[in-house]
Order: sequence, then C-alpha cells, then structure tokens
Amino acid sequence: MQRHERLIRLTRRLVERPMAPIGISALAEAWGVAKSTLSEDVQLVREVLAEDGAGRVETLVGAQGGVRFVPQVARDRAEAFLWDVARRLASPDRVIAGEFLYASDVLGDPDVIDTAGAMVASRFAHAGVEVVVTVETKGIPLAASAARYLHAPLAIVRREQRVTEGASLTTHYVSGSAKRIQTMSLSTRLVPRGARALIVDDFMRAGATARAVAELIGEFGGEVCGTAVFMATSQPAQKMVADYVALLEVGPVRESGFEVRPNLGALERRVTHVD
Amino acid sequence: MQRHERLIRLTRRLVERPMAPIGISALAEAWGVAKSTLSEDVQLVREVLAEDGAGRVETLVGAQGGVRFVPQVARDRAEAFLWDVARRLASPDRVIAGEFLYASDVLGDPDVIDTAGAMVASRFAHAGVEVVVTVETKGIPLAASAARYLHAPLAIVRREQRVTEGASLTTHYVSGSAKRIQTMSLSTRLVPRGARALIVDDFMRAGATARAVAELIGEFGGEVCGTAVFMATSQPAQKMVADYVALLEVGPVRESGFEVRPNLGALERRVTHVD
Repeated sequence: MQRHERLIRLTRRLVERPMAPIGISALAEAWGVAKSTLSEDVQLVREVLAEDGAGRVETLVGAQGGVRFVPQVARDRAEAFLWDVARRLASPDRVIAGEFLYASDVLGDPDVIDTAGAMVASRFAHAGVEVVVTVETKGIPLAASAARYLHAPLAIVRREQRVTEGASLTTHYVSGSAKRIQTMSLSTRLVPRGARALIVDDFMRAGATARAVAELIGEFGGEVCGTAVFMATSQPAQKMVADYVALLEVGPVRESGFEVRPNLGALERRVTHVD
Repeated sequence: MQRHERLIRLTRRLVERPMAPIGISALAEAWGVAKSTLSEDVQLVREVLAEDGAGRVETLVGAQGGVRFVPQVARDRAEAFLWDVARRLASPDRVIAGEFLYASDVLGDPDVIDTAGAMVASRFAHAGVEVVVTVETKGIPLAASAARYLHAPLAIVRREQRVTEGASLTTHYVSGSAKRIQTMSLSTRLVPRGARALIVDDFMRAGATARAVAELIGEFGGEVCGTAVFMATSQPAQKMVADYVALLEVGPVRESGFEVRPNLGALERRVTHVD
C-alpha cells in the first residue's frame, strides 16, 4: 500500500470516529507496513489537521500504542459560527407569545448541530465523559452530536415514565420559570453506576432542569463532569447550577428587539484532565 | 502545498460533511494548484474510499464543478453490524412487561447510531431528501444521524403542542397497537412547502405513526420519499404504510425467547434517482 493510500485511509478512520482509539500496531500489521512507517504517516496527518485547527491526533499511552482524533473547532471558525447563529436567532419574527424564542429550525440544521456538538465535545474531550445525558426533546440532536464527537453513549431523560424504558428512576422538581411541578425519569440501564456524565441541553433559563438532571445522575451514583447548553438566558444571571457552558447568551426576548451574543469564553478548553 | 497535505485535507473535508458540495475550482484557487492537479487528488481519494466501501465521491454536474461524499456502508460491514445488533437485542433480559423490547441503550450507542444513520442515508442518498422527519423521542438520535449523513435538516414531530414551537399543524390518529387516540404536532416552520421528506423512526409495529406523519407531511404540501425504521415487528405483516425500510425485524417478543433478524434487503440501494 502506498503512502498516499495510507494517508487517505488514516484520515478517514480518524475523522469518521472521533475519540475512538485506533491501534497502530494492529493497523501496521494489517496493512503490511513497518510500525515506524505508519507512525510517520500518523505524524503527517497530525500536522495537517493541527494546522487546519480541525482536531488533534493524540497518542494513547499504553501497551497497545494507539491514537485517537480529538475534535476541535478552530477559534476563528467557532467565532464565525457563533456570530452567524446569533444573527439568525436575533430576529423579531422569532418571538413567540411575547417572550419565547423560536429556535427549532436552527436546532435542526445539520451544520449547526454538527459544529455545536463538536464545540461541546472539544471543550469536554478531556473530562473523562462516559455518558452524555439530555432531557427530551429539543436538545437531543445536539446531545447526540456531542456524544458522537465524544464517542460516548447517549442517555435521554424522559418527561414521563414509559413502559418501553423498563425500570426507571423518577424525580419531581419545580421548574424555575413556570413554577410548575415537572417530572423526569431515566431508565436505570442507561447510566452505569459511578459513570461520569456530561449534561447537554438546548436551553437554560434558571437552570432548574439541569439541576434536576444532575440530582438524578447523583441518584445513579454518577458524577456530573460538566453541563453544556446551546443557549442560556442572561436573566436570571444566577443559575441553579454552579458551573455550565452556554454557546450563546440570550437577552430578554421582546418583540421590539433582543440580543443574542456568542459566548466566546465557551470555546476555551478546560484544563481538567482525567485519565 | 504538497500532494500529501492535499489528500489529507480533501479526505477530511469529504468525510466530515457527507453530501455537502465542495467546489473544486474555488478550492484549487485557494490552495494555489491547477484544477487538473486537484482533480487527480480527488480521483485518488475516490479510488481509495471506493475500494474500502466507505463511500463514493461523486462529481456534481454544473458550472461550479464540485464533488460530494456520498455515504456508504460496505455490505460486509453492514451485515456484520446488523447481526451484532440483532444478537444484542435478542436477549431475554430485554423483555419488558411481557411484550416490549428494551432497546434504549442500543439506540444510544454512538457506533450504532452512526452506522445505522449511514445505512439509512446510503439507501436514500439519491432520493432527493430535503428534510428528515421523526417523531419524538427514541428515534431522534437515529434520525439526526441520517440527517447528518444526508446533509438535510431535521424536523421533530412533537407529541403535544408546545408554545416554543410556534404555529403548528396538529393531527390526531389511532395508534395501531394500543388503539389509543394519539396527537402529533409539527411546527409550520420546519417543513418547507413541497419539500421531499424522509421519515425516520426507531420502531414500527402496525405503522400507524408513520402513516400519520406521512399525512402530516402531506398537509404541508410535502412529499414522502421514503420511510426508514431501526426495527419493525414481523406482526402484523401488513403495515399501514405501503413502502418502508427496516434495518431489523423483530418476532413476537416473549420471555421464553424471540427472534431479531437483520433485514439484509434494507441494504440494497434504491434505483430511484431524483435531481
């Protein structure tokens, strides 16, 4: 196999399944090349992807000698993306019933889902995420995208108990905005005991939902290693969760006009490393 | 820029955004190479991806001279995948309340979502899909994956009207299994008038839900160009939709044992071409 072909195959495998380990020794054997030759190929791919800000090819420590592709969204692309989404959202014809912001079309746009998911994954790539947890319904595509980029399973919290979910843990909480009692329910088979969970949702106002999900994860003996939302309202400034990342911040929604601001701080990688 | 670098960059761009067009003239200019040189690079990538059964690099007809990556799951990989999923599902400890099959963990597995979505997309890549429509909740990750591979927006049908969805079209129907009256509601902004829609869901028993979604799409002046589900029950054999693709077929679920069969016919590409 020529170098050209190996580079194409390597790039395809890395990009196609972010965070999934690729065994270099096994691949060298399968392709009939020396491990050192394949390592040179990996280095070439690594340099080009790094130069493009497309992601990092990380070497895994251990006997197997593997690599994985850690997603990344280059800062200039992330900024341009968030400004673009902010402009799309900050439109008076999106105001519903006086105070709600219509965003379902944006949250269903394949490029938005993909880039936003990559941004969330990039931020939490080294947080040791073992499961991505979301609440039905609108946040599911974003959460699924983040889960794909993190190569982690997705667990969906339901608003009602469903027979098809089997044994479930159910909790009740008071929503921050409507002051209504809400129910949420998570199948006991979806979150392994002690798992590190990343909470992903489309929207955060007071943070009551995220907090209830965190408590639910706690009931499973799990640990919340992060909370990421597509957009959070600027008010109330004090949320019910201590620590969260929002890609966009939305000011009070009024028909006379309102602000949607990219949260460029959301792009900064956390320094928490867990192995 | 050396050929090595161009091949890595081309592969990354193609694989990262399936079905999204890449303009070859613009890229040649940006990279400072002759268009003929870049076309040779494209040809190299095309051959390697085709040889691996990973997807087809199609040349787009038109003045712009573009290419796109059409997802494909090689038949042997698809077969192995479906058998693997079938074996996971056909387990007595998945039987819930006598007749339901627990599958939420499988439907949240990132590799399952990704491969199944690619299979659905591969099957309908030439059906001219303009929007992927699903019904909340469990089918959303698969539908989002198919939408990513088709580079089409995702529209989620809600089970209740929601204020945040804005103006919605609502319909009622009688579910085939439980004989209960069900409601579904779709935001009028999500399906453009006359759009070609692919319906994707996790499960089909009688097909009443898929049929109701098809009727809803019809109300939008849209056209259903296909229906794909992760699994369908073998009974009733006669479904309420004429034409659908199921990746897996599930026999009557009983605690004493039941069958889950890969539907290898689902892999066959349709010959319908729409441009």
